[in-house]
Amino acid sequence: MNTSALDALKREYLPALEAELREGLNYPPDGSDPTVQMLHYHMGWESSQYQQAGASGKRTRPLLTLLCAHAGGGHWRSALPLASAVELVHNFSLIHDDIQDESELRRGRPTLWAIWGKPQAINAGDALFAYAHLAVQSATRLSPDTRLEALSVLDQACLALTSGQHSDLAFESAERVDEKAYKEMVAGKTAALIAASAELGALVACTSAPQRENYRAFGHALGLAYQARDDILGIWGESDRTGKPSGEDIIARKKTLPVVIGMEHSPELRALYRSTAGDDVSDVRNAVRLLQECGARAAAEDVEREQVVLALSRLAAAGPVGKAGEALRALAQQLLERTD
Amino acid sequence: MNTSALDALKREYLPALEAELREGLNYPPDGSDPTVQMLHYHMGWESSQYQQAGASGKRTRPLLTLLCAHAGGGHWRSALPLASAVELVHNFSLIHDDIQDESELRRGRPTLWAIWGKPQAINAGDALFAYAHLAVQSATRLSPDTRLEALSVLDQACLALTSGQHSDLAFESAERVDEKAYKEMVAGKTAALIAASAELGALVACTSAPQRENYRAFGHALGLAYQARDDILGIWGESDRTGKPSGEDIIARKKTLPVVIGMEHSPELRALYRSTAGDDVSDVRNAVRLLQECGARAAAEDVEREQVVLALSRLAAAGPVGKAGEALRALAQQLLERTD
Repeated sequence: MNTSALDALKREYLPALEAELREGLNYPPDGSDPTVQMLHYHMGWESSQYQQAGASGKRTRPLLTLLCAHAGGGHWRSALPLASAVELVHNFSLIHDDIQDESELRRGRPTLWAIWGKPQAINAGDALFAYAHLAVQSATRLSPDTRLEALSVLDQACLALTSGQHSDLAFESAERVDEKAYKEMVAGKTAALIAASAELGALVACTSAPQRENYRAFGHALGLAYQARDDILGIWGESDRTGKPSGEDIIARKKTLPVVIGMEHSPELRALYRSTAGDDVSDVRNAVRLLQECGARAAAEDVEREQVVLALSRLAAAGPVGKAGEALRALAQQLLERTD
Repeated sequence: MNTSALDALKREYLPALEAELREGLNYPPDGSDPTVQMLHYHMGWESSQYQQAGASGKRTRPLLTLLCAHAGGGHWRSALPLASAVELVHNFSLIHDDIQDESELRRGRPTLWAIWGKPQAINAGDALFAYAHLAVQSATRLSPDTRLEALSVLDQACLALTSGQHSDLAFESAERVDEKAYKEMVAGKTAALIAASAELGALVACTSAPQRENYRAFGHALGLAYQARDDILGIWGESDRTGKPSGEDIIARKKTLPVVIGMEHSPELRALYRSTAGDDVSDVRNAVRLLQECGARAAAEDVEREQVVLALSRLAAAGPVGKAGEALRALAQQLLERTD
């Protein structure tokens, strides 16, 4: 895979994106707004309270927006406010997810709620949601109609996101989840915002309606494939390095794609998932064996492959041009071939 | 006070507002979206799960939007989507507030988190925030520029709201809060959205910029006065009926306006607020006596009166016309003279 176009464009885009994000969130802070300082910490930026900057995330969604704008024949700089908005929406959802899941760590640092408590973290997430909307308002290179349309795309994605999150939370206590329901959950929780990220790029490029729909569908399939890969890695990740599956999602009894498929075929796996007090090492070993035997791993890989093929075909149909088009194909491959 | 104009306009506006709210939240539900059904319950509407409809709140903010649109010379029906949006933002903030404060009851019914748990309630609040934005999108009688401007006013109000909420949460664990900090908190938490409600009405009416600023300032002062009244009632409310102060805010050790003022002057009150294991009845009796003695009740009433005068003078400067203008003056009086 030739990633040189992607690497070159990343070097061009990412510093501008970072500047856009910081400007939108009033960074560096003037000390008057403690909520915004919580957001700076979450974004991984240096702050007076936490000198050490942390990891900032991969900025995949905004990169997709900028690449689609560029590949659709538009100016990527005009898309910066929308790219910033999708990254802020993504981070707003992470802040609330961490509270909902009681996750104490993100990107190797304590989460917002772990430091400031849940009430303040809920509130900081709400503020970030408002900032995401205001980022779109700052897109003065775009017509009022385009800005409104962008906000509509973003809010519809947020609705899909909350719908997916509702299901994800409900699945935790469900004894069984069927594959169809699982896929609908992922379509909301993961794919909707990635689809919106690509669509917003197309919107800036003023592509034709069918092209825009192709970019959106490309993003959607990419999101589904990405989540399938994530689910596979959650069980078999790191196996290349240690020679053993990490199985972290099995220990947490997460109902991810391979497990959902496996539970449809394996009564033993269903029994194992009902038990909670087992020995982790042997649970993982048994679950992995059952998942392989009933074909769940292969079936999950089929889902991923199917969505990769769909993503690349919708991208081809969108007819992306130039180096950005090349970079989009490389980005899709890179996301899907990752091993961690 | 002559409230006949207000009553007549309420009879005209409120059914249309209710229809607008229900349409925006896809009511009645088709059964496919469990999050939206949580929102219907929160809004007090009948649902298959909770047959009994509950109280819906007083709809004060959207009423203000409609009255200001009308009194500014615009069409109140054109303002319906914006009125709906402010009511949805208000309710989104209530859902998250109830989680943050762990309040188990609202309008006489269990709160969302008390029924569905905090993770799902956080998520339902997030969905409602998105619906509030989409309500503005549906205002197709307004130009794209006006809709964008409305979204900007709304998101700026949300930022002020989260800033006020941050302070309010921080005050809970602070030993002392000064009056200036308290007023800034109320300006964000209460007044900003009421100011935005009035401003959005003026926006629909296409008033001049100074008029719009007068409507906004009217709403802001109204919000400050409203909260001062609320704080006074939280200590001395119901005293007309029972002959004794209810003192519920003292039992909860809330640092409301009279208390904040009182703590600046009374070391005994500071000591009482540091103690938590006291006897409720005698605590209330003592606190009320201290608040009266040091002049805190009178000072809080001065704050309220000052803001009422300011609100009515800014309203007069805005030059509201017709029955809606009359109704606005009556609404302001009614809010401020309430005893519960």
